[in-house]
Amino acid sequence: MVSTLAAHIRAVRDFPKPGIVFRDITTLLRNPNAMQIALDALYEPLAGTRVDKVVGIEARGFIFGALLAHRLGAGFVPARKPGKLPSATMRETYELEYGRDAVEIHTDAITPGESVLVHDDLLATGGTASAACRLIKRMQGSIVGISFLVELTFLKGRDRLKPYNVFSVIRYESEEQ
Amino acid sequence: MVSTLAAHIRAVRDFPKPGIVFRDITTLLRNPNAMQIALDALYEPLAGTRVDKVVGIEARGFIFGALLAHRLGAGFVPARKPGKLPSATMRETYELEYGRDAVEIHTDAITPGESVLVHDDLLATGGTASAACRLIKRMQGSIVGISFLVELTFLKGRDRLKPYNVFSVIRYESEEQ
Repeated sequence: MVSTLAAHIRAVRDFPKPGIVFRDITTLLRNPNAMQIALDALYEPLAGTRVDKVVGIEARGFIFGALLAHRLGAGFVPARKPGKLPSATMRETYELEYGRDAVEIHTDAITPGESVLVHDDLLATGGTASAACRLIKRMQGSIVGISFLVELTFLKGRDRLKPYNVFSVIRYESEEQ
Repeated sequence: MVSTLAAHIRAVRDFPKPGIVFRDITTLLRNPNAMQIALDALYEPLAGTRVDKVVGIEARGFIFGALLAHRLGAGFVPARKPGKLPSATMRETYELEYGRDAVEIHTDAITPGESVLVHDDLLATGGTASAACRLIKRMQGSIVGISFLVELTFLKGRDRLKPYNVFSVIRYESEEQ
């Protein structure tokens, strides 16, 4: 079933810049059957695992992040770009190809000792997910895994997320696949 | 049950600017029981209604938008800020207190005649939701309703969304409530 999911992902060439093939999940999201299969596949490696909070990374990570939280009986915590969260936050910066960016979580969103799953739609270089994990560690959360719908394996983001459990549903070995 | 939900919303004074009381739903989201009650309340007026697509407005509208789509057996369509969606889009602009903003949906996200629910987390003046509805009408979708977790009734956004069915779960009559 999972193998059929890739057919629902649209490849958009030269977005957001020349040479990049953007993996567009909106064509999967608009199909309720594909969405259900994707959710089942994201949930499957976590079945039976205690998860207290799912941290979803802005903005596309909110979609399956919320669905996973609901399925797992966990709370949902948004990780957002700086300045978006209204109360006290912790922030971690990460390197981009040109410059830096940062991600924030509300300071009181995770209680020490809680089991936390991180979710984003796509694993590229892993910079954002790695920064989210650093935030969760600072809050003394226990990271049970990092879950992605799509993984671009040729960018080796998984190496950057060691020693955590990394789960992904649809994998691309090259830009041209 | 719904009346207890308001206790899970955090009021943050002077965010994003002085005089505004921001209604922070992250304190509700992190509580799985509150999230379930909120989802049930959002779903209840739509039970038995055919919904083909749920349009969730970036970014917080993705959270319950995705959950509602799943619950209704509908597809999920993100309405995003300009430049975020990778394929061909339609755009509608709307007025802000100072200046303008715009929202986009993929041109092929809605098929003529489909039943569409619009969802965002909060109804203030209704500008964004109204723009999203104009997009859906341009795509010849049929709008079955507009759903919000929180409504600031004193801003009269509901008037701007006539003649559509507007649903909300938690209502505030003033900034000070």
